[in-house]
Amino acid sequence: MKTTYTIIIDTFGSDKGEENVILGASMLLKEYEDIRITLVGNEQLIKSTIADLSRVKIIPCSTTVNNNDNPVDCLLDKPNASIFLALKELKEDDSAIGLISSGNTGAILVGSIKYLKVDDIRPCLAAVLPNGNETFTCLVDVGSTVDCSSKQLVQFAKLGSNFVKDLYKIKSPRVGLLSIGNEKQKGNKLVKETYPLLEEDPSINFIGNVEGNDALSGVCDVLVGDGFALNQVLKVTEGTVNKLIKDIYLYGKNNDFKESEVIINHLLEKYDIPNLGGGILLGTSKTVIKCRGNSNEYAVVNSGKMLINLKNKNNLY
Amino acid sequence: MKTTYTIIIDTFGSDKGEENVILGASMLLKEYEDIRITLVGNEQLIKSTIADLSRVKIIPCSTTVNNNDNPVDCLLDKPNASIFLALKELKEDDSAIGLISSGNTGAILVGSIKYLKVDDIRPCLAAVLPNGNETFTCLVDVGSTVDCSSKQLVQFAKLGSNFVKDLYKIKSPRVGLLSIGNEKQKGNKLVKETYPLLEEDPSINFIGNVEGNDALSGVCDVLVGDGFALNQVLKVTEGTVNKLIKDIYLYGKNNDFKESEVIINHLLEKYDIPNLGGGILLGTSKTVIKCRGNSNEYAVVNSGKMLINLKNKNNLY
Repeated sequence: MKTTYTIIIDTFGSDKGEENVILGASMLLKEYEDIRITLVGNEQLIKSTIADLSRVKIIPCSTTVNNNDNPVDCLLDKPNASIFLALKELKEDDSAIGLISSGNTGAILVGSIKYLKVDDIRPCLAAVLPNGNETFTCLVDVGSTVDCSSKQLVQFAKLGSNFVKDLYKIKSPRVGLLSIGNEKQKGNKLVKETYPLLEEDPSINFIGNVEGNDALSGVCDVLVGDGFALNQVLKVTEGTVNKLIKDIYLYGKNNDFKESEVIINHLLEKYDIPNLGGGILLGTSKTVIKCRGNSNEYAVVNSGKMLINLKNKNNLY
Repeated sequence: MKTTYTIIIDTFGSDKGEENVILGASMLLKEYEDIRITLVGNEQLIKSTIADLSRVKIIPCSTTVNNNDNPVDCLLDKPNASIFLALKELKEDDSAIGLISSGNTGAILVGSIKYLKVDDIRPCLAAVLPNGNETFTCLVDVGSTVDCSSKQLVQFAKLGSNFVKDLYKIKSPRVGLLSIGNEKQKGNKLVKETYPLLEEDPSINFIGNVEGNDALSGVCDVLVGDGFALNQVLKVTEGTVNKLIKDIYLYGKNNDFKESEVIINHLLEKYDIPNLGGGILLGTSKTVIKCRGNSNEYAVVNSGKMLINLKNKNNLY
């Protein structure tokens, strides 16, 4: 079968260790016979983990951006860190459709601005989560820009809209603005500045403010907010799901329930956020997927599937 | 039995209607024979709803602050709105231990600054939620001040610490700062400014940054953040609980499960946030409890119980 496109994987950055990331790459190669994978990382380890290297390119690397590093400084101090080598390769390899990394979000952002910038667009990080309508809601930005301007939020709204239009074939995605009340005048300074801008933009189907309890109820297809607050929406959802599952487990055990395990498995399958695939950087010339720090091999596989789904991405998101 | 103290209730502002608030007052009177209740609202309706008015005072009122009103303007334009009459009564009645309102949070804040201010302290809204350690975590501020300064966050940390010291008898409450990563340098501008201030304050047992997925895991007794972001933590928790309960219900129904109803009842009892009682305004001379907008009679009863628990509150929170 003809090899048609390449996925780049930064093997460093996962709390679960690079072996799991490499294992995920190996699983992707087995499932998709028409892809090649370029791995940035420990050459020795990659060679000893993947049996068939015929569709693998290795970019040897021993430097990584840590969570304690300042991302902007790193671009100068650690130009050979895995994420930067991976982004450079993504830019230069014409067959490359996208990149997967579990590394430092800030480093992914500044590196993407260097290698994948489109016009004057500031890239943003989107996450797609299941909502109460049995569809999905795209949250943007979930943590790449924590101090946002209102103009940036409008840009994020457009990128998010175009993304869900393409991915979910929604003609006119409903865009909500994360706030502390539904009314127009409720919100912090940023929300109050952003509301009229979203309202008057004809390219955005703005439905108004959305409160946290409705963030994933299904009232909107795209939920826009600054990276600090929307990161809370993402992580509090995850934390609450985990807490309830633990609670159901203990309660079921104490009461000798027979069905709680099935219920837990159902919830885990539906809401296991780290394994749903990662956040997607929008507004770049090629797709970058940021997996959570606690990503395992399945997160890599799911991210790879998402990249393959998005391989014909246009420059509108 | 000797009547010893009074609870003030603003009957306006609940989405569920004033009848439910008045009904809650009636339930409180039945349960606690040593309390009096002062109700601000529709005299006719109050008289027709409560059978025994011997321990009830009515302050007739027909004006309310709507969610569309600007709270600061209202203090001048609507000085006779129910919340302001209630706060004035709370200040002037020596037997009054506290106030319950489901009204506009901003109006409660500005009214409390006018009538209940202590020194130069800006009051803040705290909510106490069950955490993963089977204890409770106090979130502060959950929405009264949405654009905060770092100094205000430090003040909120102190008020929250003193509150849980008194309410839960925790000697040295662990204080976390809501952020997007555990590392010291992770966060938005406000978090980065606040971190060193909390770190160097000897009266605060600061444990560092806490991410959204750990907000209610039990790693801290007090979680400090700006009112916008912490409002998301509160409401996303509620929204996620509701979504999972709905999911378990449907999944159980489709599979003819026998135990899912018991599991749902257990979760509802433990995590039914609107009924857990309201947010507590800290930093005022007397206690004000803000019930959620969708509060029913049980929220009023639970808030009354909390006021009774806190009736010996000191001026440290």
